[in-house]
Amino acid sequence: MPHPVVLFLSDYGLSDDFVGVCHGVIAGVYPEARVIDLTHGVPRGDVLAGALILGSTLPYLPAGVVLAVVDPGVGGDRRAVALRAEDGRMFVGPDNGLLSLAYAIAGGVVEAVDIGRSPFALQPVSATFHGRDIFAPVAARLASGAPLTDAGEPFDPAGLVALELPRARVSDGVIVAQALYVDAFGNVQLDVEGDEITRFGLAVGQDAEVTAAGGRPTPARYVRAFADAGPDELLLYEDSYARLAVAVNQGSAASRLGLAVGDQVRIRPA
Amino acid sequence: MPHPVVLFLSDYGLSDDFVGVCHGVIAGVYPEARVIDLTHGVPRGDVLAGALILGSTLPYLPAGVVLAVVDPGVGGDRRAVALRAEDGRMFVGPDNGLLSLAYAIAGGVVEAVDIGRSPFALQPVSATFHGRDIFAPVAARLASGAPLTDAGEPFDPAGLVALELPRARVSDGVIVAQALYVDAFGNVQLDVEGDEITRFGLAVGQDAEVTAAGGRPTPARYVRAFADAGPDELLLYEDSYARLAVAVNQGSAASRLGLAVGDQVRIRPA
Amino acid sequence: MPHPVVLFLSDYGLSDDFVGVCHGVIAGVYPEARVIDLTHGVPRGDVLAGALILGSTLPYLPAGVVLAVVDPGVGGDRRAVALRAEDGRMFVGPDNGLLSLAYAIAGGVVEAVDIGRSPFALQPVSATFHGRDIFAPVAARLASGAPLTDAGEPFDPAGLVALELPRARVSDGVIVAQALYVDAFGNVQLDVEGDEITRFGLAVGQDAEVTAAGGRPTPARYVRAFADAGPDELLLYEDSYARLAVAVNQGSAASRLGLAVGDQVRIRPA
Repeated sequence: MPHPVVLFLSDYGLSDDFVGVCHGVIAGVYPEARVIDLTHGVPRGDVLAGALILGSTLPYLPAGVVLAVVDPGVGGDRRAVALRAEDGRMFVGPDNGLLSLAYAIAGGVVEAVDIGRSPFALQPVSATFHGRDIFAPVAARLASGAPLTDAGEPFDPAGLVALELPRARVSDGVIVAQALYVDAFGNVQLDVEGDEITRFGLAVGQDAEVTAAGGRPTPARYVRAFADAGPDELLLYEDSYARLAVAVNQGSAASRLGLAVGDQVRIRPA
Repeated sequence: MPHPVVLFLSDYGLSDDFVGVCHGVIAGVYPEARVIDLTHGVPRGDVLAGALILGSTLPYLPAGVVLAVVDPGVGGDRRAVALRAEDGRMFVGPDNGLLSLAYAIAGGVVEAVDIGRSPFALQPVSATFHGRDIFAPVAARLASGAPLTDAGEPFDPAGLVALELPRARVSDGVIVAQALYVDAFGNVQLDVEGDEITRFGLAVGQDAEVTAAGGRPTPARYVRAFADAGPDELLLYEDSYARLAVAVNQGSAASRLGLAVGDQVRIRPA
Repeated sequence: MPHPVVLFLSDYGLSDDFVGVCHGVIAGVYPEARVIDLTHGVPRGDVLAGALILGSTLPYLPAGVVLAVVDPGVGGDRRAVALRAEDGRMFVGPDNGLLSLAYAIAGGVVEAVDIGRSPFALQPVSATFHGRDIFAPVAARLASGAPLTDAGEPFDPAGLVALELPRARVSDGVIVAQALYVDAFGNVQLDVEGDEITRFGLAVGQDAEVTAAGGRPTPARYVRAFADAGPDELLLYEDSYARLAVAVNQGSAASRLGLAVGDQVRIRPA
């Protein structure tokens, strides 16, 4: 039987040793663990971006323990937690909303423990690097089969901090959306999901006008793939996680429209 | 017996989840797979750079399945393919030339299938992320031992898209070369291979004049290693993949000479 | 029994294939090897930074072979070495001080061999990429159980090149320290270790004045964790490797104070 997987996401970046030393800790605790790095390029402290990535990718990930660390409140009074979801997946990380979109997709949390003083933690626990000292060793122990109740103090999952995503709406025929996520290529994901796209009035091949907060209307076309648009053309498309997104073929929509996460984007189908 | 290896190269970068989710898909399909990340730092959409890296590194890589995704035409009519080469290696990726230098080194393609509608693909197949939905699961299934013919529709390998590299020439005693690849340190690889270096008139210790497109002649020296040149000295050397390269010791030749891929570089041995 | 671990650190970056091809070489030599990437983001040629990372992280890493390549002298006359430390760990890399802080922590070197002409090396050995041609295959063979004496020519460990770290001192009640390391977030690690922090006059909650080389005194506070400081506040803290560090909560202390590695930092406790 293959050994359980640890799925690791953080905002640690890859320039320093933060990620590598967590891998070292996991291998020390549980040598047979297989670790998959989901990404460590979450913008520093950006809990929403980390939560969106976890939620979007979860359906593509094998069963195992999600180890997620985007933790601007480390060393403060935010809770450190380990959770078991309805579908059997485990989640380890700070209780700041980072895990909340993913565990919702996993059917919700059925068991929760506070691991702030976990017996699995490395001693002494530093005040600034709980990824290494608490989260990684707890995730490794859970992957190795340790019972969740041995990892910390049980508490009621209803007390967990959950993120709430904005939801686009239609007003006078205009889609009023928010920018949720901007990837490294400048593609901007919006808060319009799956079947809302057609329900809100967009069909493949259709023209539209896109207006970013404080900007001027820009013509765009709703297409199926980048290859359906000309170079430098502004395009709308259903991205690979089934959300509406704005892009520039071979360019950056974020730069072109001056868009950042949280900004409003108005789309008027032609 | 060790499990087959998947050798993964892309232009996805590491800031987002693109690479991580492909790892997740592979682990879901074939948990015993070992994945080696060759690099995910290929400049976005730069098929030539990806092809050069695959070709150069192939002799150093263990047998297995090469999974390569630099795919500016994703969602368009370029073919998605899985190939078996004469030496037994498998290749999975878009049919845009990306794989062509590598499979030539592997002895040429002996069997090819179109995987655009592969039964191994994840359903539904997105229009923009074939790495996750087609290429990764097909590579994982092939690594697990599935026959190539189960992966898609056979076609004649003669129809594959192949890249042709420029070749340097000597004109009036001047080596007229092209910049093939620029690495992160600004070292510039040229289209002069192995024994051509001496045949074209360069010997270790020799002085030369290097002129980049539109620039002025700059003195350089052909040396064996960076340690043979002074700090900031422009040097010529046979790089670790046996091609002539231009570098600045502890600096960037690309910046110094204003060089980009495709530019002409003229070298006059003294 | 889990297979031995190769712990890999370099300044190769992840944009090119340098790291990936070393992984490929290791997998070719010893398919069962598990490789943990400690980091490949060491600033190019920065031997001190690489040495500090190895020394700091070693206590958190499982037993195995440390493969470290920060090697500005590659192809010159610096020695290439493989070492066995008192605690059983192995170290492979250039003899330029890079390994010296780590092997000291491992109890010192008890056996050393020169691997410049190692029988384990790939042939031909390039002049510029000893990571691929010498260090990676030697590390893989040692991880697979090959005896150290088979890897090269024995020499007296007393001849190894060792780095000496600066040590902070107190002068007229002012801590005179040096910047040792700057991480990707701009946190600056100083040469004040563990119990020196309190011995030199800092206690949690205490105010202090920090003056960087050539700068003006800036108020700061010695705190336990980032969460104990306000946004943009300059703070002093014991970092996760038990050294005094300067940071800006949600910002960069290196930028704020204009600090680089080697700069003097004066701290006057209030």
